[in-house]
Amino acid sequence: MILYFDSTNISMNLKDFKTTKERREFLEKNLKIELVAIAKAHVDEEKTIRCENLIGSTVLPLGVAGPLRISSFAKASEDKKNYYIPLATTEGALVASVSRGCKAIGLSGGATVSVENVGVTRGPVFETSGIKESLKFENWLNKNFNLLKFEAEKTSSHLKLKKLGTRIAGTYVYVRFYFDTQGAMGMNMVTIATDEMSRFIEKNIKVKCLSVSGNFCIDKKPAWLNFISGRGKKVWADVILKKEVVKEVLKTTPKNFFEVWLAKCMIGSAMSGSLGFNAHFANIVAAFFAATGQDLAHTVEGSMGITTSKVLKNGDLYVSVYLPAVMIGTVGGGTTLKTKQEALSIIGAKTSLELAEVLGGAVLAGEISLLASLAEGTLSKAHQRLGR
Amino acid sequence: MILYFDSTNISMNLKDFKTTKERREFLEKNLKIELVAIAKAHVDEEKTIRCENLIGSTVLPLGVAGPLRISSFAKASEDKKNYYIPLATTEGALVASVSRGCKAIGLSGGATVSVENVGVTRGPVFETSGIKESLKFENWLNKNFNLLKFEAEKTSSHLKLKKLGTRIAGTYVYVRFYFDTQGAMGMNMVTIATDEMSRFIEKNIKVKCLSVSGNFCIDKKPAWLNFISGRGKKVWADVILKKEVVKEVLKTTPKNFFEVWLAKCMIGSAMSGSLGFNAHFANIVAAFFAATGQDLAHTVEGSMGITTSKVLKNGDLYVSVYLPAVMIGTVGGGTTLKTKQEALSIIGAKTSLELAEVLGGAVLAGEISLLASLAEGTLSKAHQRLGR
Amino acid sequence: MILYFDSTNISMNLKDFKTTKERREFLEKNLKIELVAIAKAHVDEEKTIRCENLIGSTVLPLGVAGPLRISSFAKASEDKKNYYIPLATTEGALVASVSRGCKAIGLSGGATVSVENVGVTRGPVFETSGIKESLKFENWLNKNFNLLKFEAEKTSSHLKLKKLGTRIAGTYVYVRFYFDTQGAMGMNMVTIATDEMSRFIEKNIKVKCLSVSGNFCIDKKPAWLNFISGRGKKVWADVILKKEVVKEVLKTTPKNFFEVWLAKCMIGSAMSGSLGFNAHFANIVAAFFAATGQDLAHTVEGSMGITTSKVLKNGDLYVSVYLPAVMIGTVGGGTTLKTKQEALSIIGAKTSLELAEVLGGAVLAGEISLLASLAEGTLSKAHQRLGR
Amino acid sequence: MILYFDSTNISMNLKDFKTTKERREFLEKNLKIELVAIAKAHVDEEKTIRCENLIGSTVLPLGVAGPLRISSFAKASEDKKNYYIPLATTEGALVASVSRGCKAIGLSGGATVSVENVGVTRGPVFETSGIKESLKFENWLNKNFNLLKFEAEKTSSHLKLKKLGTRIAGTYVYVRFYFDTQGAMGMNMVTIATDEMSRFIEKNIKVKCLSVSGNFCIDKKPAWLNFISGRGKKVWADVILKKEVVKEVLKTTPKNFFEVWLAKCMIGSAMSGSLGFNAHFANIVAAFFAATGQDLAHTVEGSMGITTSKVLKNGDLYVSVYLPAVMIGTVGGGTTLKTKQEALSIIGAKTSLELAEVLGGAVLAGEISLLASLAEGTLSKAHQRLGR
Repeated sequence: MILYFDSTNISMNLKDFKTTKERREFLEKNLKIELVAIAKAHVDEEKTIRCENLIGSTVLPLGVAGPLRISSFAKASEDKKNYYIPLATTEGALVASVSRGCKAIGLSGGATVSVENVGVTRGPVFETSGIKESLKFENWLNKNFNLLKFEAEKTSSHLKLKKLGTRIAGTYVYVRFYFDTQGAMGMNMVTIATDEMSRFIEKNIKVKCLSVSGNFCIDKKPAWLNFISGRGKKVWADVILKKEVVKEVLKTTPKNFFEVWLAKCMIGSAMSGSLGFNAHFANIVAAFFAATGQDLAHTVEGSMGITTSKVLKNGDLYVSVYLPAVMIGTVGGGTTLKTKQEALSIIGAKTSLELAEVLGGAVLAGEISLLASLAEGTLSKAHQRLGR
Repeated sequence: MILYFDSTNISMNLKDFKTTKERREFLEKNLKIELVAIAKAHVDEEKTIRCENLIGSTVLPLGVAGPLRISSFAKASEDKKNYYIPLATTEGALVASVSRGCKAIGLSGGATVSVENVGVTRGPVFETSGIKESLKFENWLNKNFNLLKFEAEKTSSHLKLKKLGTRIAGTYVYVRFYFDTQGAMGMNMVTIATDEMSRFIEKNIKVKCLSVSGNFCIDKKPAWLNFISGRGKKVWADVILKKEVVKEVLKTTPKNFFEVWLAKCMIGSAMSGSLGFNAHFANIVAAFFAATGQDLAHTVEGSMGITTSKVLKNGDLYVSVYLPAVMIGTVGGGTTLKTKQEALSIIGAKTSLELAEVLGGAVLAGEISLLASLAEGTLSKAHQRLGR
Repeated sequence: MILYFDSTNISMNLKDFKTTKERREFLEKNLKIELVAIAKAHVDEEKTIRCENLIGSTVLPLGVAGPLRISSFAKASEDKKNYYIPLATTEGALVASVSRGCKAIGLSGGATVSVENVGVTRGPVFETSGIKESLKFENWLNKNFNLLKFEAEKTSSHLKLKKLGTRIAGTYVYVRFYFDTQGAMGMNMVTIATDEMSRFIEKNIKVKCLSVSGNFCIDKKPAWLNFISGRGKKVWADVILKKEVVKEVLKTTPKNFFEVWLAKCMIGSAMSGSLGFNAHFANIVAAFFAATGQDLAHTVEGSMGITTSKVLKNGDLYVSVYLPAVMIGTVGGGTTLKTKQEALSIIGAKTSLELAEVLGGAVLAGEISLLASLAEGTLSKAHQRLGR
Repeated sequence: MILYFDSTNISMNLKDFKTTKERREFLEKNLKIELVAIAKAHVDEEKTIRCENLIGSTVLPLGVAGPLRISSFAKASEDKKNYYIPLATTEGALVASVSRGCKAIGLSGGATVSVENVGVTRGPVFETSGIKESLKFENWLNKNFNLLKFEAEKTSSHLKLKKLGTRIAGTYVYVRFYFDTQGAMGMNMVTIATDEMSRFIEKNIKVKCLSVSGNFCIDKKPAWLNFISGRGKKVWADVILKKEVVKEVLKTTPKNFFEVWLAKCMIGSAMSGSLGFNAHFANIVAAFFAATGQDLAHTVEGSMGITTSKVLKNGDLYVSVYLPAVMIGTVGGGTTLKTKQEALSIIGAKTSLELAEVLGGAVLAGEISLLASLAEGTLSKAHQRLGR
């Protein structure tokens, strides 16, 4: 076979160049463009970078919101701690808005946060001859959990298999493996571990693994499975905002806030067929992820969740957020880049759980500020002043 | 009222500093950290940056995939064009994978792309006294569309109101305004225009606007409304991959590819309750958005959509992607940053429609390569080699 | 080929018998059972029955709720009318509960109802060679709407083609035809009309109809398409319940009612990933459909929708329901059975729109009563007394 | 307070009459109608009927499909058994269609069925002061499971509490109790048991039960929670249809069948945002439920699920169905009516598990026949002949 290739149209392959500079210069020359800033912004050592056909780096402005005052449910004491929150964004008003939320939280005595480590998931799909074999395979998986765990944990000392769940549709058996990946977000290591288990399964009971990911993970796609069963970390945060703070800092009233929340986050999201019953989780999650070196595509999971609010008997305003699927880590992946390391040092979280707690508080701050703005009709004014 | 504020715990407000440098130095001193890379990577002029409490910039490695060979449905001629695709990512294997997909596409004669400009949407919520008034208001909106259009278009010469849709639940009337925002993604300008129309409505028929966004937009949240009705731009791309190319470049067979696609993107996504019937749209969308200055939180909308595949009678492999809600622009927002401008110059798209076409082709390439990897069980091996 | 058939195991084919009696007697003898009640309850003339292998009839108890006092938004006058509501059910407390809701509505001056005739839908799927041909086909459909309409309306004088919508995924083109079917629910006639159009399409532009129903109708399955775009009839109903009525008839307070509604119909349904943001639409819809000869499988569409509630400034309680997809008729299908005709005569609705209005009011009454019961914790007590 | 009541408009209350006959006669006289058939069809003793304001009974034609040949996964032996399937319907062609599916199954050697008893669920919602108390309450629930179980099982000897699951959103704690209710569908008894547990909880740890049902059950509403976690019984059925049978009985080919299934049940349902990835589960479920005395509103849960199909290497056709949430019983509720008892005697199932198995097989038969009809374009012709 001779593969036809029109060499006049398709230029030299970028991966044939040896250095970033050569690639960049090839593009500059060939396309008659200049890539000065991309070269200048390239501040990391290349050996630490995982990105092929590299030509340099691209930047995002980095602002800092806070301080955010939170206490963790996990800690025995009631000690509150303050955090600065680095946010990488090009959306004017976002950092200011989160900061305003932090101020309201701080003046009300701080927020409470809590994180549950559900575990990173990988969901391969296996193929059988029909429901009889599928059901037998399901039994086998449950009986041989410890063997599978042993196989999985051989692949990395940083990984524990926590549990598995199965779903059967005819010849298809979907298995959802949940892993503890310590400080790492861990998708790569769980893929390798799942691949190892899949080969073990194929060898031992002759059930074929169709795909190491059968979208039962389900990774980087909006999905009720992640909402209902959780993925990565479940994160909660709440605060009781004093009515004076609502008035002076947020320029609205608890009642107006509540009514906008109800019309927008509840009924509006229902009318839209949404998995996001919130005001703008994704804005804070994306900016926090970009600042701290997380996988940006996991913003998808992070956009799901529920904000609740309530006017208390004494007139204060209760607000909470719940994010069922936060994929986050403090080591590995993009966190090794210098600017990300520095951003992480601003936060100072010692574990990925603590990092998720800070994210939870930041999302709560963002929800508070945006819903308050909408309640007072100042949203478009804020955007006019800061956004353009 | 005296707002209690514990000055020993909550440090000086970052917005009180006048310069980026002062803010950065304050944090360095206070937290005993170094922010060297964040300072160094700060390559843009600050007056062009929309980010409060700025302390510098954060970077992402920039790789280039391609060339991607596509022809646009919109163009009368069948002329194909090649594009290089800048992708900002920290996920090893992603750029290589998209490049492999581009190679398979190119060797098969190129892909077809098409974009429909649905329009950027803003969905305010209004409050009435009940369904009678709600239904009357709905009638009023439809009858007075031209008046509303006039009000909206007063706010910017770059914006056209295309149409509106309404949904009623008791006292709540949700209105979805669709705008043509030319080259810009345009969320800010449509918010301002919607605010203007809302005030006009309040003045003229005494129906109260509860919130300029009632989550009927629905912005940055996964939602069936966006999937079904579209948002921003609908994007399609497809290709017929020659069976020889599938074998030599993708190392699998059309039949294996099809079976993995069916088990994963169709049945797997159904079992997960997903709005993403695809392999990994979000990876390519996030990397493309980060490279070209789009709003990263719009990765959420971009993760929705369907990949289809089919083994043709002659043994070739047909693959298509459909993204119902792509929020993208070539001007405004993050596109004004230097590194983003340079990335856009690599692509060379003249309009936001053309930019969306290239994204469509890149997503198609990414789907092809990942599904092929899964089909041959090489996914985890690729990650082992490139990802760690 | 000789089809193997084990005659000792698979008994004589029921369709070989000529009469209902013979079939019944065959089963009685063969299975050693008695089918006395099934014979006795068989009150219709068989020529009017559409059910193969008939052996008799099965019964459901029929209760009557009401009177329900409603006024229609469609009518110019404010005249209110009272309706009795026949409900076929075996769930104790249901009729009593709807009656209580009707009483609360009546004592508060009646409810308002409104119906929009979206149209019955059929959604065939066509197959093309790829997105180019798909997009051309979409254009052709829009340009030739009148021709299609002519073909469709040839098949029945009771049917009008109102509009069509299309969605494309690669080689698949889904078309949603909306029909006005006058008094009939009309699924059969729209299937025939769609089949006629599909053949016309195949003949004229060589695009193959893969299936006259491509689940883009989407019939008898829960789906956001029906929720968002409507199907059959959209139905609204609302009422302002006087606070005294809430207290004396419903034994709760507006505030308690609101809090249960919020926790259950809003947040609870969000946490469950539901398309039903209501308390129990399906109960009333199923009982009303069973009483009036509707297709029971359309209970699925009828279970979708939103209940809203609000405590008004004067302390009264506002409640509304919205059902986006009610499939209902007054002629054809099961409505021709004698007991259904009699039930329809109890209601006295002159059109399917009026019938849908009464259903809307009945559903509102059912929501009011159940939510009130839950608010006062009396649900299980009511079930204990009436249900067993 | 004097409650205004317009006695000229709202007629005498139906519950004031003592007998069914009096109520019927009142309506006949008042509305000038005749309720002859409703009286005649009233074949049950009233003391066994749970329906208030009774005026008689309404009927549905009863047809019988089959025999259906199935073997149960649960049984050690491979013995196959034949069942007749009573179906109550007014939709012409439905019984004939299921019968045709049964014939194809029988000629191919029978189908395999399997049922998992997930348990009937009730999902109350509790209210706390915030996430701290919510998380503590969650811990308490898990620690005190045995105490709760004891309280629940006091209320009925026919009920076992199997497990519980919780979800937290701020002040709201949703608890999903799973019960084994033996042969009964059991919603009433689980409501009473849940009410008992809720009072125990309120007494013991001062957490308030807002509503005994918080839509986390979630009952009679389409919801991903039921799809993903199951409710009542999970039911699977599959069969390998011989290619000769597909040709001679179903008048199509395995390949055509597969292509229609893919276009309709997979891609079509995805495009519609559906929870029903099947052809028409709801038709068979509704007709089976109406025949056997199940709660018709549970058709909603029964409409969810997935049909899969595959062309095997030898050219045969594999088809399977999966229903994740079947609410069904052999005792209690509507099953006590005479005509339902007789229909159950036709099936002869000894347990609710066996009854669910037969339903699974019937749904499989219905899917096979309809998809085959669509594949050959005969759907509208069948409806023309039988449906009108």
